[in-house]
Amino acid sequence: MATIIELAVHDVRFPTAAQGDGSDAINKGDYSATYVELRTDAGLTGTGLTFTNGRGNEITCLAVTALRHHVVGRSVEEIFAAPVQFLRSLTADVQLRWLGPEKGVIHMAAGAIVNAVWDLRAKLAGLPMWELLATLPTEDLVAAIDFRHISDALTPDEARDLLDKGATGSAERLERLTAEGFPAYTTSVGWLGYSDDKVRELTRKAVADGWTAMKMKVGGRIEDDVRRARLIRAEIGPDALLMMDANQVWDVDEAITNMAALSAVRPAWIEEPTHADDVLGHARIARAVAPIPVATGEVAANRVMFKQLLQAGAIGVCQVDACRVAGVNEVLAVLLMAAKFGVPVCPHAGGVGLCEYVQHLSIFDYLRVSGSLDGRMVEYVDHLHEHFTDPVTVVAGRYRLPTKPGYSVTLQPESLRRYTFPDGAAWRDVR
Amino acid sequence: MATIIELAVHDVRFPTAAQGDGSDAINKGDYSATYVELRTDAGLTGTGLTFTNGRGNEITCLAVTALRHHVVGRSVEEIFAAPVQFLRSLTADVQLRWLGPEKGVIHMAAGAIVNAVWDLRAKLAGLPMWELLATLPTEDLVAAIDFRHISDALTPDEARDLLDKGATGSAERLERLTAEGFPAYTTSVGWLGYSDDKVRELTRKAVADGWTAMKMKVGGRIEDDVRRARLIRAEIGPDALLMMDANQVWDVDEAITNMAALSAVRPAWIEEPTHADDVLGHARIARAVAPIPVATGEVAANRVMFKQLLQAGAIGVCQVDACRVAGVNEVLAVLLMAAKFGVPVCPHAGGVGLCEYVQHLSIFDYLRVSGSLDGRMVEYVDHLHEHFTDPVTVVAGRYRLPTKPGYSVTLQPESLRRYTFPDGAAWRDVR
Repeated sequence: MATIIELAVHDVRFPTAAQGDGSDAINKGDYSATYVELRTDAGLTGTGLTFTNGRGNEITCLAVTALRHHVVGRSVEEIFAAPVQFLRSLTADVQLRWLGPEKGVIHMAAGAIVNAVWDLRAKLAGLPMWELLATLPTEDLVAAIDFRHISDALTPDEARDLLDKGATGSAERLERLTAEGFPAYTTSVGWLGYSDDKVRELTRKAVADGWTAMKMKVGGRIEDDVRRARLIRAEIGPDALLMMDANQVWDVDEAITNMAALSAVRPAWIEEPTHADDVLGHARIARAVAPIPVATGEVAANRVMFKQLLQAGAIGVCQVDACRVAGVNEVLAVLLMAAKFGVPVCPHAGGVGLCEYVQHLSIFDYLRVSGSLDGRMVEYVDHLHEHFTDPVTVVAGRYRLPTKPGYSVTLQPESLRRYTFPDGAAWRDVR
Repeated sequence: MATIIELAVHDVRFPTAAQGDGSDAINKGDYSATYVELRTDAGLTGTGLTFTNGRGNEITCLAVTALRHHVVGRSVEEIFAAPVQFLRSLTADVQLRWLGPEKGVIHMAAGAIVNAVWDLRAKLAGLPMWELLATLPTEDLVAAIDFRHISDALTPDEARDLLDKGATGSAERLERLTAEGFPAYTTSVGWLGYSDDKVRELTRKAVADGWTAMKMKVGGRIEDDVRRARLIRAEIGPDALLMMDANQVWDVDEAITNMAALSAVRPAWIEEPTHADDVLGHARIARAVAPIPVATGEVAANRVMFKQLLQAGAIGVCQVDACRVAGVNEVLAVLLMAAKFGVPVCPHAGGVGLCEYVQHLSIFDYLRVSGSLDGRMVEYVDHLHEHFTDPVTVVAGRYRLPTKPGYSVTLQPESLRRYTFPDGAAWRDVR
């Protein structure tokens, strides 16, 4: 038995805004994390985080505190004996639910806690998260999913079938991953805050480092977007994949018009072409820009949004985030719905710890759900990994399999001290 | 000129949970408000609030604080010279937007601030909010709307046309409202927390008080729902309207099945039959239960969600909330989209101050947008009005027109002191 005896939440912020890293059409901030530690009487500590963009990280921290009574005093064994009951204690709290429901600050806080509980479970089992998930019995995985409000798209029986069938050939796929790693693409070349020269320089470096898939930000002036796209395409050659990400700045008709201009540069996908809540808008865009697939999901709030994006044929790429939704449990629902609808999952990463998180999800997806690497890639951004005790290893455009127990988002003690806001040394220097 | 020199935010909570008031299928809490005061150098104070359900109200309060720098130091005149620019400073803040975007805690906080700014404007003009809005030039109303992400459903030109045409006959309609009041329905009879005897007693009282439209909560055991529905129908007779509200507990297919059982009691509408984010689910339910209209909106996060509900034919009744969306500006977008799609607006009320707020919106909608009372009613719950300096007046099932300047959500100073959490006298007594 491991009983959770304390929840500590830390407001961790990295001063990235000053460098222009991470700038896109509508976000420019200090990459931050609402960092949760669950201490147990067994000596182990589970960690989870949700990513934010700087100011406001104190709000998600406070939301974690508002949920702490649902987790402190409970044992990991008891939680996983009735995982949906635990999940709903966080996502359907009779008073706090009003603040979402199941979206935004309160749901992100739930995600950080849920992931910390899963991290504990993996550490107790002595397994990296992907391996814990890939080796769990089908019934345990199905029992972790809240089918409420998605049963019209995925039933427990369908989930069971997918997981049972998905297990076939798992051992061979694991061998392949161990040898080759999981395919990745890089988002470090074309942020809007960078000059053309910097974009060219970074693209050349990416190609030299073995990257054959990379993402640029669009959503500035369309002339600038096209120029930068051509510049990158000229550097990477005709065969490499060039993804484009508009970060929701366009209206629906504007997206369709602008993609007509960008299509000559042969985008591998168009990501967040319009407001993330606009399922019907994404569906219209998807029809208009086909065969270029529409990608979205990094701010899709919950499984009900993903359900609709899939039902409406609005996305050709599912970019679930590890901690905007309610953690591993809700991601499982999304992975299985995506598999049922035949849509590849390429999880959102970057930020703080998101690469560390999502590598586990994609590996599990390949080993146990989709069984395929076709169109599957994990986003990679080369920021801030040095702050984690088990950072991702990416070699020649591929994630190597993590081997340490847990979910890989435990911060180095010194980084935690240094970047805690506002009293850490990094912030005292800034002021 | 009136410059905002201070923003004060108060965590106000009323201990309603202990009485079972306000209990429904998934909410049970202490009705609360994140209460914002904007003090100006002109001596006037603008007030706005967003409603919450108890625990977590401190989170929306903190979110208001995170947004304060966008409003303190600005003049009301400057804000309304470029209202969308001001609105986006709150809803598209480059760092805080990530916490929504445009949903949940951060968007509700924006709503409280935006409404306080409008309250100031109305008080400066010496007009109740409905009259300020109804007498604003069309261009000023159009300029207050953020068309971003809704231009595929409503263009500025279409909004202009609706408002210009809507003005015709406004004087006659105002006379009618002044004489007769605005139609209302009551939600005080059938909360799930009440016994059958209490429901019967409250229904009889409502009928005696002149109510001909009332709402019951469903979403318990279906047998219980049907029994209570029959009980209420027997009391109110065949001609009165009986609305039903499931507060999102059903899955899509479950909603369709349960409404087949409840249809014999002739519901006037079915409200929140499933998860509020499920546009496609609502559309399927709407087709299945027709001609019973589907109603939703109290937790629809923003104009993009309303746009889709309307585009998909998913709702027959639009229940916008005054302060879950980003205040008056975003409500204007919703009212105009609803008018374009021919869907009546029956705003969500109850809670704390919501009746006070939405009476203004429905009166404006009738005077200037829809021009019709057909199917239009304002929700009424008889809780907590005594705490406001300009409480609603409802006589024989109709709201009387408010006459005091402003948006009617200013709390009595003594109530503010007494119910501030956790140090007010009302909470000291509870502990």
